[in-house]
Amino acid sequence: MKDLKVNFERLIKDLEELGKIGQDQRGGISRPSFSLPDLEARKWLKARIEEAGLIYRQDGAGNIFGRLSGKSSQVVMAGSHIDTVINGGRYDGSVGVLAALECLRRIKEENLSLNKTLEVASFTDEEGNLVGDFLGSRAFTGQLQKEKLKNARTQFGHPLEEILPKAGLSVESLLRASVDRPEVVAYLELHIEQGPVLEEESVPIGLVSSIAGKRYYQATFVGKAGHAGTTPLELRQDAFLTLADFAVRSTQLVARKYYGNTITIGRVVLKPGSFSIIPGEADFTLDLRSQDSHSLKVMEEEILALASEVSSTRGLSFYRQLVDSTEPVVIPSPMLERLKSLCQKLSYDYFILPSGAGHDAQILASICPVGMIFIPSIDGLSHTPEEAIHLEDLEKAANLLLQALISLASE
Amino acid sequence: MKDLKVNFERLIKDLEELGKIGQDQRGGISRPSFSLPDLEARKWLKARIEEAGLIYRQDGAGNIFGRLSGKSSQVVMAGSHIDTVINGGRYDGSVGVLAALECLRRIKEENLSLNKTLEVASFTDEEGNLVGDFLGSRAFTGQLQKEKLKNARTQFGHPLEEILPKAGLSVESLLRASVDRPEVVAYLELHIEQGPVLEEESVPIGLVSSIAGKRYYQATFVGKAGHAGTTPLELRQDAFLTLADFAVRSTQLVARKYYGNTITIGRVVLKPGSFSIIPGEADFTLDLRSQDSHSLKVMEEEILALASEVSSTRGLSFYRQLVDSTEPVVIPSPMLERLKSLCQKLSYDYFILPSGAGHDAQILASICPVGMIFIPSIDGLSHTPEEAIHLEDLEKAANLLLQALISLASE
Repeated sequence: MKDLKVNFERLIKDLEELGKIGQDQRGGISRPSFSLPDLEARKWLKARIEEAGLIYRQDGAGNIFGRLSGKSSQVVMAGSHIDTVINGGRYDGSVGVLAALECLRRIKEENLSLNKTLEVASFTDEEGNLVGDFLGSRAFTGQLQKEKLKNARTQFGHPLEEILPKAGLSVESLLRASVDRPEVVAYLELHIEQGPVLEEESVPIGLVSSIAGKRYYQATFVGKAGHAGTTPLELRQDAFLTLADFAVRSTQLVARKYYGNTITIGRVVLKPGSFSIIPGEADFTLDLRSQDSHSLKVMEEEILALASEVSSTRGLSFYRQLVDSTEPVVIPSPMLERLKSLCQKLSYDYFILPSGAGHDAQILASICPVGMIFIPSIDGLSHTPEEAIHLEDLEKAANLLLQALISLASE
Repeated sequence: MKDLKVNFERLIKDLEELGKIGQDQRGGISRPSFSLPDLEARKWLKARIEEAGLIYRQDGAGNIFGRLSGKSSQVVMAGSHIDTVINGGRYDGSVGVLAALECLRRIKEENLSLNKTLEVASFTDEEGNLVGDFLGSRAFTGQLQKEKLKNARTQFGHPLEEILPKAGLSVESLLRASVDRPEVVAYLELHIEQGPVLEEESVPIGLVSSIAGKRYYQATFVGKAGHAGTTPLELRQDAFLTLADFAVRSTQLVARKYYGNTITIGRVVLKPGSFSIIPGEADFTLDLRSQDSHSLKVMEEEILALASEVSSTRGLSFYRQLVDSTEPVVIPSPMLERLKSLCQKLSYDYFILPSGAGHDAQILASICPVGMIFIPSIDGLSHTPEEAIHLEDLEKAANLLLQALISLASE
């Protein structure tokens, strides 16, 4: 049992097949949840689960499960997601689902009799193409509110209520997902790092110590548009200059006072957005992250206060709307110790690191202990067609996942 | 002759009629040069010119003229433009053309025998919807280069060469416009202020002392995109943060060292432009203006150097392309004194001010003395459907223009 290894050729074949679904003309994969390619990928995954002799199940949120029953109905779960960002990569999410599938296949092939039931899970819309990240795992853990779902619209303005029926779902079924949930006693997720740390450390495996929480704001500075030639600098209420001032000062604040936390302004739209017109309005996104709940909360308050201050000093107005929010999660020490000792037994080098990106594991942490295994991202690239991994890293990580599942399910 | 006044009702009727051509669903006027509404407006203007008994002429740049011959073939010209920005106002440009037309009509009606020939002028594409501001007046004054015109494309990527034939023109005809030009000895332009100064000063008339020169740059900071959660602040090459830093520091520089000059960043596009991705590229427009040639040149150099410095300090690259450029123009003192003394004779209050906006008069200044008469813009608004004037200001300004034309043409 301790020498059991995954069938890596089979796992690679799965990865290649899934990677053909939703190919984007620009070179990557476009498989947002409930798109035609996603529906095709779901059918493909269902066929693999059934082919392996696992019990297929889809819940009210469209989350897909493959079950291998044990002596107890308590579930040790492993998975991730098969949806992608638009024109994303082949590995983000997929490696976690397919490695877990392969682990369950191997355990079943070996006829291992385990105390706990095992399940592979593929959660809906981890990437938040519909209405914010983690729709599936949030539904699964009972973190959704009916009122919000009823009013939810995608970034393209489509009501969520009209999209769900395409996948045979509804707001009501989403809310039922957590009620119908089995008793999950542990959740493991294998994922690409999406950053540069493991590559720099030259290790095949990362063990996650904590997962960053975040605040997403959609915000706006409103000033006054005016002719660039006829309005003296001192009479302007320039929304872009106010945003620039805020961006510089808030980033300095985070770097100085909240070292390790991050602030990112990724999207900016100026109105009217013309060569010779002073911007009257600057819409922007604000992404705040921290590995520590308290630090995140205090930083968030200070940054919003700074935005109001910069804005009012310059005679503008500041508006913001919280679009999404997750709490930081610390991986429980017994889980991290278990993964460390398995790495040592397998003679795999590893590095312990925090995750700046969010993951379904973070959401699952509200109902059970979670653990995360990272593999290096080549050049740290993520959410791009160029996303890549070294296959030998995946093989080691899948073997670690296999041993961890056996270990957890044996208790 | 000194009591001669314009027929203001007729001028208002013309303004109303022209204001119906190119109405935009959003409430303003969309009449970019060589669009269908512009072609309709040109036909309408031609009919007015001929109806008034003036000699209609269109040159190779599509500039429209109406001539009232005097004893000499030397021309005293007055005009502006009838093209508009997209969804702009009813007065920007139009008041200058229609007031000049009304002046010539009144002079003809009175059978005044003047030494100089008078012409009303309407210049093509003052607003630069095609390939940069002042295409018509630049053609008229011989400031265009064949090579550039051959390669010129509009902001939507259409070659200029393919658009010109729609108006019966060509690159060759554009280049001929300055060769076929009459001898112009003075040019006057009546225009809305497009700024807040005259309203604050509570005067009906502004006399322009100088017109700002400008530099338009399309520029880009290129850094490296990355995941907002997994890239520590100190390892980022954030193109937006670099732009923000540059925007704050360059504006401070202008306010401190180049008081009275302006810098405006009106349009910003971040790539990839996503919530949780560090911007790898920030495209932006840079608008620099000054009333003084030397100051404009020195400021331009210092600001471009600052952009390079900010960029290299942060490990990014800076690219820029000069898109358009005009030189500042000082209104000749005899012209300004003539307009001042006419205001005094007419008992009109006036205020002397520089123009931050560019005008055809600035281009005409390369071939003859120019003068500009401003009327207040309500709330300083410009390039918007809400652009507005007090009609009584226009009446006074048109009477001043009439007296100035008679005075100049009598010499």
